Amino acid sequence: MDAELIFVGTELLMGEVVNSNAAFLGESLASLGINVYKHTVVGDNPGRLTDALKLASERHNLIFVCGGLGPTDDDLTKETLAEFLGVQLVENAEARAKLDERFAVIGREMTLNNLRQVLVMEGGIPLANPTGLAWGTYYKKDERVYITLPGPPSEIKPMFNESVRPLLPVGDKLHTRLLRFYGIGESQLVTKIDDLIKNQGEVTIAPYAKTHEVTLRLAVKGDESKIDIEEAKILERVGEFFYGYGEDNSLEKTVVDLLREKNIEISAAESLTGGLFQSTICSVSGASEIFKGGFVTYSIEQKEKMLGIKLVAPAVSESTARLMAEGALAKTGAQIAISFTGVAGSGEVDGQPPGTVFVGLAQKGFETQVHHFRLYGGRNHVRLSAVMRGLDLIRRTIL
Amino acid sequence: MDAELIFVGTELLMGEVVNSNAAFLGESLASLGINVYKHTVVGDNPGRLTDALKLASERHNLIFVCGGLGPTDDDLTKETLAEFLGVQLVENAEARAKLDERFAVIGREMTLNNLRQVLVMEGGIPLANPTGLAWGTYYKKDERVYITLPGPPSEIKPMFNESVRPLLPVGDKLHTRLLRFYGIGESQLVTKIDDLIKNQGEVTIAPYAKTHEVTLRLAVKGDESKIDIEEAKILERVGEFFYGYGEDNSLEKTVVDLLREKNIEISAAESLTGGLFQSTICSVSGASEIFKGGFVTYSIEQKEKMLGIKLVAPAVSESTARLMAEGALAKTGAQIAISFTGVAGSGEVDGQPPGTVFVGLAQKGFETQVHHFRLYGGRNHVRLSAVMRGLDLIRRTIL
Repeated sequence: MDAELIFVGTELLMGEVVNSNAAFLGESLASLGINVYKHTVVGDNPGRLTDALKLASERHNLIFVCGGLGPTDDDLTKETLAEFLGVQLVENAEARAKLDERFAVIGREMTLNNLRQVLVMEGGIPLANPTGLAWGTYYKKDERVYITLPGPPSEIKPMFNESVRPLLPVGDKLHTRLLRFYGIGESQLVTKIDDLIKNQGEVTIAPYAKTHEVTLRLAVKGDESKIDIEEAKILERVGEFFYGYGEDNSLEKTVVDLLREKNIEISAAESLTGGLFQSTICSVSGASEIFKGGFVTYSIEQKEKMLGIKLVAPAVSESTARLMAEGALAKTGAQIAISFTGVAGSGEVDGQPPGTVFVGLAQKGFETQVHHFRLYGGRNHVRLSAVMRGLDLIRRTIL
Repeated sequence: MDAELIFVGTELLMGEVVNSNAAFLGESLASLGINVYKHTVVGDNPGRLTDALKLASERHNLIFVCGGLGPTDDDLTKETLAEFLGVQLVENAEARAKLDERFAVIGREMTLNNLRQVLVMEGGIPLANPTGLAWGTYYKKDERVYITLPGPPSEIKPMFNESVRPLLPVGDKLHTRLLRFYGIGESQLVTKIDDLIKNQGEVTIAPYAKTHEVTLRLAVKGDESKIDIEEAKILERVGEFFYGYGEDNSLEKTVVDLLREKNIEISAAESLTGGLFQSTICSVSGASEIFKGGFVTYSIEQKEKMLGIKLVAPAVSESTARLMAEGALAKTGAQIAISFTGVAGSGEVDGQPPGTVFVGLAQKGFETQVHHFRLYGGRNHVRLSAVMRGLDLIRRTIL
């Protein structure tokens, strides 16, 4: 089936609310193998909603209408769709019983407009709302299916999963795999696999640039093993930048898991990044196994005092990065320690331009490495980029 | 002008990305008094984009097309719109110079497809991209304006604010003011000003719950002083939770500005939060004036060693929070020091349930305070909530 999603709500047009329902429904339908070709957002306006319904009916055969099922006067979805389809709205007995019970429990008086929430389209399949009061309807006419859903994310999700999902046709299941890359730009990556993308067949390849990494989503309907073949071709070209799979993965999770696996304790001394590296490590569950503590040394005085070192060069320099990493290693007894010093602001510091970053990496029994980067962007972009570079250095060093 | 926003990207239809640009543009245009009547999302497909452009041109006279300006083959917005309008794409010299410079700085090789990013529509007004490489165009035809914008939120915002905003007509200007509250839930806040919301007249009051705070947006067309009157009524009821104004504000910015104003140096010793407090402080420009350094003390051993203290109670306890804050104060010589210890994981620690947090606040010449909270949510929600509580404590203590 070819789907269109229509969202109703002036608050969406005015930007007061981010439309997270669009992402939820898009992902849910994609996983069922249903193609979504269009999203439309209109305000709480019957004329504009009718126009959108007309256009959707001419183009697609599965039409979701989300939002505007509530009790207030600007909730007009049901009435508008019923008129468009030429059907009546009728009270649903089960929905009414739940509404009465709810008001009895909370001890508030029900107002007349609450009754609008329990109206459903006559001749359709009523859709229960496990977490709210407004019911939806599944209605079929002229080989087209219309489904109404509530606007609040806490209601749309259970209603879709419990009431709508069982009614939808299951196509050839879509298998997807997300490959994550760090250290290569989107355009470079795409250039290296240009022919694979241009000649993609059953397995689709979709590149996507996130703020600090690039992902490739491979998808195929039916036979999942075809993804393996395509993945192998891709990794042959750009495998050195590949670090892991999946939506819930991240460079920090990969690094923490690697450190745990190899039983390596890490510490840090952060200037530029101000604790962001350590906080990023600690955001990963299980971090306490491999991280016991570290330092945020913003001023020169605190660098020397906390780390027990004597600087012999400006704060932003290779020498300082080296001493900081070695100081953190010595002070904590960790097996590896990383340091960050650099320029995140907009002016020069120690003769170094904004975006200059030195990352030190001290390891027991090895020579300390110092890496020099020029990063671009504003204060917090540079700070986060530096942390990501640091994580990647650790990943490569351990491997 | 009547606007429609068209968003291009299969990743939006598939739900891989939440369309935060829609909210940003909707809000920005509303603030200029421009009415947005429709959003349309289509995939990376020239035929469907052309259909959407045709429908939009029939209905509206200000059409934004966002996304698909990047370097890869699925970025087809420019080509499709240029063909729809019957114009040529030409290289923009300024954009090209910036592209060349970027690649020279980072020392990576430019690929041919990067050049697509510097193409603009001939005869239009080129729109510079302050944070990226892909330029947009403002193009007028038959009394209709078409504007192309990039997809990444970090790029669309500066391009809109710096390049597009000055080109848009200003209607009866909508004045808005955003009030920010911390420490009160949305429903509590709304209950306290229920009558003001129900009887709102020219000044509209829109509450909005963000993850760790609540905002109220007041808006009026024409006479801005009416907002002052409404604001005074609101703050009479809930002023104790109000901390500042505006989109670009935050609790951390408020705290850093306060510390700078009063010339108070701060330090920290973090267990639970793992550096997140210090990193949050350092995310604010000017933080180096009031923050010189601090500690991430994850293990018991490092708490004692780094802070020069001897624990007399379990790690997660009031006593430990107190000693940590006092240790950080003594070690750094700051005027105020904050500590965090608690349980972010899913199991009990030291007999304390998940979500337990102790925050210590030591101040030169004052008795150390320790606050005990029970926070809800997963690991990183608890960590961030704890940091916000800590910031609020500092704000209230300094004031």
